[in-house]
Amino acid sequence: VVLAVPSAFLGATLQQLTVSLKDKIIVSGVKGIVPESKCIVGTYLNKQFDVPLDQFMVISGPSHAEEVALERLSYLTLAYTKSANAVQLQSLLKVNYIKSIVSEDVIGIEYAALLKNIFALAVGIAHGLNYGDNFQSVLISNSVREMNRFLNKVSEFERDVSNSVYLGDLLVTAYSLFSRNRRFGNMIGRGYTVKGAQLEMNMIAEGYYASSPVYEQAKQLHIKTPIIDTVYHILYQQKNPKKSFKKLAKLLD
Amino acid sequence: VVLAVPSAFLGATLQQLTVSLKDKIIVSGVKGIVPESKCIVGTYLNKQFDVPLDQFMVISGPSHAEEVALERLSYLTLAYTKSANAVQLQSLLKVNYIKSIVSEDVIGIEYAALLKNIFALAVGIAHGLNYGDNFQSVLISNSVREMNRFLNKVSEFERDVSNSVYLGDLLVTAYSLFSRNRRFGNMIGRGYTVKGAQLEMNMIAEGYYASSPVYEQAKQLHIKTPIIDTVYHILYQQKNPKKSFKKLAKLLD
Repeated sequence: VVLAVPSAFLGATLQQLTVSLKDKIIVSGVKGIVPESKCIVGTYLNKQFDVPLDQFMVISGPSHAEEVALERLSYLTLAYTKSANAVQLQSLLKVNYIKSIVSEDVIGIEYAALLKNIFALAVGIAHGLNYGDNFQSVLISNSVREMNRFLNKVSEFERDVSNSVYLGDLLVTAYSLFSRNRRFGNMIGRGYTVKGAQLEMNMIAEGYYASSPVYEQAKQLHIKTPIIDTVYHILYQQKNPKKSFKKLAKLLD
Repeated sequence: VVLAVPSAFLGATLQQLTVSLKDKIIVSGVKGIVPESKCIVGTYLNKQFDVPLDQFMVISGPSHAEEVALERLSYLTLAYTKSANAVQLQSLLKVNYIKSIVSEDVIGIEYAALLKNIFALAVGIAHGLNYGDNFQSVLISNSVREMNRFLNKVSEFERDVSNSVYLGDLLVTAYSLFSRNRRFGNMIGRGYTVKGAQLEMNMIAEGYYASSPVYEQAKQLHIKTPIIDTVYHILYQQKNPKKSFKKLAKLLD
């Protein structure tokens, strides 16, 4: 049995859920940290509702939803501990503009989808500070390596971060001028305060919320994350974006 | 002694060069295949003028020259067999808008700079055929892996293709609307013939010339290169771009 989980799901009561989730496979398209728990969705469901990891599936990009709606060819990745069982969902997704790929890297893929928002935000800040395309490509190439270091620490898995679900998802987010995270970052780089940018955009940039718990986790696990640190310092500690990026630029290669 | 080599260099006579090159370190910024020999520049100089590999240095991006001219922060990589000796050139490049990185992957970096033009051309064709950003990110993520396979076969080296000189250089070329290779590909995707696109652009897209010898080399070395193959088939064997990309899309993941 397959059950799709929209974000609203997280508001339901504990009892309702524990009953209704039993023996069901949960497919999550939510990319973020559950605020009160500071966990990704899979870990949250496991801790809070005893959902075993092998009943939890993640569906991930690279895909702008707008393009999927327009039926432009997109590749999705279904992450599930028993990849053979993901075939059931794969057959449900069989339309000629979707190609679905199966992976067993459930936790890594959930984290990657989260981290890419922070990196896209960083790319936006750089753009707002008037760094050019050359710098941007260096920043993204460093982001991929930072993502790899992070994922290797939170979940051991033989992954190749240049696969579409990691690198591709980062690219589609970081290079899109319509990405909320990139737009938000761009405003920060141009001198807006966090409040000012949020008011102006009238929507939430996921990378803003993600950067605080991810920063903390990186510190705890001793992961070298200069880009995430810089974003966190600018957004949460009122560090000057221009000075912070000057410092960051020295650490990139 | 350091000698910079512009493309025109390759037109000088053999005798002149063999004499003047003795004991000099040659720094090449030329990215391409020398037509008559089907070799990259380093190999060509070695075969034709007995220049040993340890007198040959490659300077590579990611860098749009326009941005360097505008003094926007850019990262260059200097590839030299004895990386410690590259410090001499590094000190010559010391300006506050250039950060230079040193690597010993001379052959890999020369090939990477060449291959990225073919991949940017493929991205252009996809764009011309009206594929969207989702597909583009998948195509680039597959390009990185194809580049990695190619480099591993032509030159054994412990490289991480997500470093700036590989991935970053590909990104700056593939995502730039001003890239000649991307523009050329875009025209092909929109239905121009090779001749028509060349006339219209009035300049050369390096990826066009590179794709033929690189395709041959990939076949000889049994490297799986579906993207390079597709570009080659479209440009040199008059295959239909739309049909070829439909076939290619099935091979990507």
